Amino acid sequence: MAKIIKGKPVADKITEELSKEIEEIQKQGGQPKLATLRVGERGDDIAYERGATNRAKKVGIEVDSLVLPQHISQEDFIEELEKLNNDTSVNGILIFRPLPKQIDESVIKYIIAAEKDIDCFSPLNVGKMAEGDPTGFNPCTPTAVMEILDFYGVEVKGADAAVIGSSMVVGKPAGMLLLNQKATVTTAHSKTKDTAQVARNGEIVVVGVGVPKLVKEDWISEGAVVIDVGINVDEDGNMCGDVDFDNVQEKASMITPVPGGVGSVTTTILAKHVVKAYKQQNQ
Amino acid sequence: MAKIIKGKPVADKITEELSKEIEEIQKQGGQPKLATLRVGERGDDIAYERGATNRAKKVGIEVDSLVLPQHISQEDFIEELEKLNNDTSVNGILIFRPLPKQIDESVIKYIIAAEKDIDCFSPLNVGKMAEGDPTGFNPCTPTAVMEILDFYGVEVKGADAAVIGSSMVVGKPAGMLLLNQKATVTTAHSKTKDTAQVARNGEIVVVGVGVPKLVKEDWISEGAVVIDVGINVDEDGNMCGDVDFDNVQEKASMITPVPGGVGSVTTTILAKHVVKAYKQQNQ
Repeated sequence: MAKIIKGKPVADKITEELSKEIEEIQKQGGQPKLATLRVGERGDDIAYERGATNRAKKVGIEVDSLVLPQHISQEDFIEELEKLNNDTSVNGILIFRPLPKQIDESVIKYIIAAEKDIDCFSPLNVGKMAEGDPTGFNPCTPTAVMEILDFYGVEVKGADAAVIGSSMVVGKPAGMLLLNQKATVTTAHSKTKDTAQVARNGEIVVVGVGVPKLVKEDWISEGAVVIDVGINVDEDGNMCGDVDFDNVQEKASMITPVPGGVGSVTTTILAKHVVKAYKQQNQ
Repeated sequence: MAKIIKGKPVADKITEELSKEIEEIQKQGGQPKLATLRVGERGDDIAYERGATNRAKKVGIEVDSLVLPQHISQEDFIEELEKLNNDTSVNGILIFRPLPKQIDESVIKYIIAAEKDIDCFSPLNVGKMAEGDPTGFNPCTPTAVMEILDFYGVEVKGADAAVIGSSMVVGKPAGMLLLNQKATVTTAHSKTKDTAQVARNGEIVVVGVGVPKLVKEDWISEGAVVIDVGINVDEDGNMCGDVDFDNVQEKASMITPVPGGVGSVTTTILAKHVVKAYKQQNQ
C-alpha cells in the first residue's frame, strides 16, 4: 500500500522558508512584488490567479493584478507588458495562458523580460532549463514535481525515470529536470509503441497527458514512485488525475493524490520564483 | 552485416542543394557570409576552422576568419564579437570553443547575436531547440545525426531511441531532437545503472561519450541503427569512435564509421545554417 505523498507539507515547508526570507528582505527596506497579467474572464485563469495571489500575499509578496479586456489588441497588450518589464518595483510577471487568439504567444514570449519571467514563458528560460543553468526560472509544474521528490526523500540520481507525456508544459521540462539531476530518463508519448512498458520500467513515473485514469496497476512496477500531474474531471464530475489512484495505490511505494498533490505546490513555486527574481535584481 | 552509412553522401546532397540556393541568392545580388572567431592557435580549432571554411567556400559562402591573440582580455574579445554582431554583411558567427580561461563562456553566450549563432551557443537557441521552434539554430553535431538518419531512410517517429551520453554538446541535444521527431527517447549517462540495457533497448542508438570502443556487440540489439558521435584515438594511434565498429558491425543493421561518419557532415550543417541565417535576415 503506497504512502500518499501530498503536496501540502511541501508547500508549507517552502512557504515557511519564504516567509522568513521576505521578513529579512523587508527589514532591509525591500519588498518583492508579483504582477499578474490576465486577459478576459476565463474561469481557469481567475482560479489560478486567486491561488497564486493568495499564496504570494501569504508569504509577504505584494501583488498587482492587472486585468485587460478580452478583445485587447496585441499592440496594446505588448504596451502593458512592457510597462511591467520596465517597472523596477515589479520583480516577477505571470501571464495567464492561453492568451486569446488575436495575441500571438510566439511573439509575446520574446517580449516578457526573461529576468521577471517566473513561469518559463521566455525561450531564454527554456534554454537555461535545458542547460541546467540555475539562474533561470523553470516552469512551475515540473518544478513542483522535483520539490515533491526532494521533500519525500526520493533519490533521483541514477533512478530509472519514466515520463509519460511530452508536452512543453509538463513532459518535456519534467524530463529535462530529471535528467539534470542524473536520472536515466525515458520519455513516452502518443507515438510510443508500448507506453505501459516504458512506465513499468520506471522507478519514478511522472504522468502528464490529460487522460483521466489512464495509468492502471499493470503499468506500474512494484514499489515505484508515481507522480500524477493530470487534472481532469471524471464521468461523475469529480476531479481526478491521469493515474487510476485506487488501482495503482496497491502497487506503488508512493503516490501523489489528485487533488492535493502536484497542483497544491505550483503556486508556492511561483512565490519562490518571485523571491529569487527579487534577489537577482537586487544583488 | 550492417550497412555502413557514411557521412559523405549526406554532406554531398546538402552541399548540392546549398550551392543551388546560393547561386539563386547571388543572382539577386545577395551574398551569405560566415565569420569565424578563433582565439589562439589550438590545433583542434585550426583543423575545424579549415574544415568549416573550405566547406562554406565550396558552396559559395564568403568567409571572414578572425584570429585573436591567446591572451586577449574578455573585454576586447567582446568588442570584437560585437563588431561581428553589428556587421550587417555577416550572417553567421562561429566561435571556436573552449575559449581560453580568461574569457567566461557563460558571459559570451549571451552576447553572440542569437540570429547569427549558427552553432547553438546562445541559450536562446537552446530554448528554441527544446521547444522544437524551427527558426532557431540547433547544434551542428546532433543535427548531423538527424540528417544522416533522414538521408538513409531511418524512421524516427515512434522508434525506440537510446542516447548514450548527456553532454550539452551531443547527448542532451540529440535526445531533444529525437524527441521532437517523436522517437521514444531514453538518455543514459555516467549515473545510469545499466547503460548496456538502455542501449539494447534502442532501435536507434546514438553514442557520444568520448570513450574509445565502449559499445560492444552485446550492447546492441539485432538490427539496430548505430550512430557513433565519438572521435577518439585508440592505443595504436588510429582514430576511432565510441563504438567498437568491427565488433558491432555484425549485429547492427546500419552503422556510421569513424572517421567518415557524423564528423563529415557537421561542417555542411554549419554552411546550411549560414544560408538559413542569411534568408532570415533578408526576408
